[in-house]
Amino acid sequence: MASKRRRGLFITFEGIDGSGKTTQIRRLARHLRSRGIPCLVTREPGGTRIANRIREILLSSKSTGMEPTTEVLLYFASRAENVAKIIRPALEKGTVVLCDRFTDASIAYQGYGRRLGTPIVRRLHEFACQGLNPDLTLVLEIDPHTSVERARSRNTRHRRDEGRIEQETLEFYRRVHRGYHMLARSEPRRVMLLPGEDKPAVVQLAIIKAVEPLLQKYRKKSGRRKRR
Amino acid sequence: MASKRRRGLFITFEGIDGSGKTTQIRRLARHLRSRGIPCLVTREPGGTRIANRIREILLSSKSTGMEPTTEVLLYFASRAENVAKIIRPALEKGTVVLCDRFTDASIAYQGYGRRLGTPIVRRLHEFACQGLNPDLTLVLEIDPHTSVERARSRNTRHRRDEGRIEQETLEFYRRVHRGYHMLARSEPRRVMLLPGEDKPAVVQLAIIKAVEPLLQKYRKKSGRRKRR
Repeated sequence: MASKRRRGLFITFEGIDGSGKTTQIRRLARHLRSRGIPCLVTREPGGTRIANRIREILLSSKSTGMEPTTEVLLYFASRAENVAKIIRPALEKGTVVLCDRFTDASIAYQGYGRRLGTPIVRRLHEFACQGLNPDLTLVLEIDPHTSVERARSRNTRHRRDEGRIEQETLEFYRRVHRGYHMLARSEPRRVMLLPGEDKPAVVQLAIIKAVEPLLQKYRKKSGRRKRR
Repeated sequence: MASKRRRGLFITFEGIDGSGKTTQIRRLARHLRSRGIPCLVTREPGGTRIANRIREILLSSKSTGMEPTTEVLLYFASRAENVAKIIRPALEKGTVVLCDRFTDASIAYQGYGRRLGTPIVRRLHEFACQGLNPDLTLVLEIDPHTSVERARSRNTRHRRDEGRIEQETLEFYRRVHRGYHMLARSEPRRVMLLPGEDKPAVVQLAIIKAVEPLLQKYRKKSGRRKRR
């Protein structure tokens, strides 16, 4: 029912840690706003007060040894809040929502990385997100080895206690990487792989090119002009 | 596989807030220990460091407005930790585990109270608890109206910020109450209703009577004597 009223555009960014998602989301948001397109940026886990408290548990290095089942349930608990309170209302108002990670991350990290398998992750998605799927998912690809290096150095630099996931092994990151590849293969119209190791400006151009066809449809639907 | 190795006894206590569960668990634990039976008391949500952090989110009055989907996912996230790290290992060592609330609480509170229905709660149970069911569940029954009164006064007295659930309406508590009744009707061998408004010593006697047949089997299985 809610999806009938939906007029916005839901674009998610994925990729293993250190793939440059945050930079590219910021760039795309700036690009869209400069063209007068209303745009909301959110991230996972997080988005609301409750979701941010769940984020703290998930990312804290004090949570080492967390059960994989607990982990995936916490991600979807946070996601259910974000979908109901932030993402869906924004889409219904016609906003373009850019989200830093979504269910595909749980497929890749928990389904493949933690080896929980994809069926349980998809069932949790149906329950927690009630049919909300991204219109486009951009996976920024980098070599798992580079990812581990970048994520570790970033965590040290920012002195944040968000190091639990970064403590994973290279083998874990390789499985996650494989997970994203499987997603791109099974849903080629929605999930697009982009080389995240290129220069940011080059990656940005590829993203704008990928987003453009959707924006044209979006403008028609919402009756917006290219510039206000 | 794990259930094959299981030698302990898993007894859960249920009931709407203020039904006297905590008092009765303490009394039963004392009774068992006085007879030389190894006994572990745990509660939900909570049990491990991570589960306790989830508890804080669930019970804090700052979490008002939480999505029902988020709520049930958080309860099972906590439960998965408690089962894997505390309850199952204790059962495998032959301990009698007394747990203040378990999946039946999610059936009653989220399935009935929040109207999520029971099928999703049962599916989450299968995933998070991996087939672990209580040997006996004692539901202490009180009138929903008394429950609301008792829970509110207790929360004020202890000055704890565990007031989110207590803010619920009487109608909500009536649905939860109905949920426990449905459980007792559908699983009469496992789920037993006891009048929680009787004097504590009277309730305790009824509990000991209910537990005794299980204890006899347990002693045979574990090869323990009545007294060491």
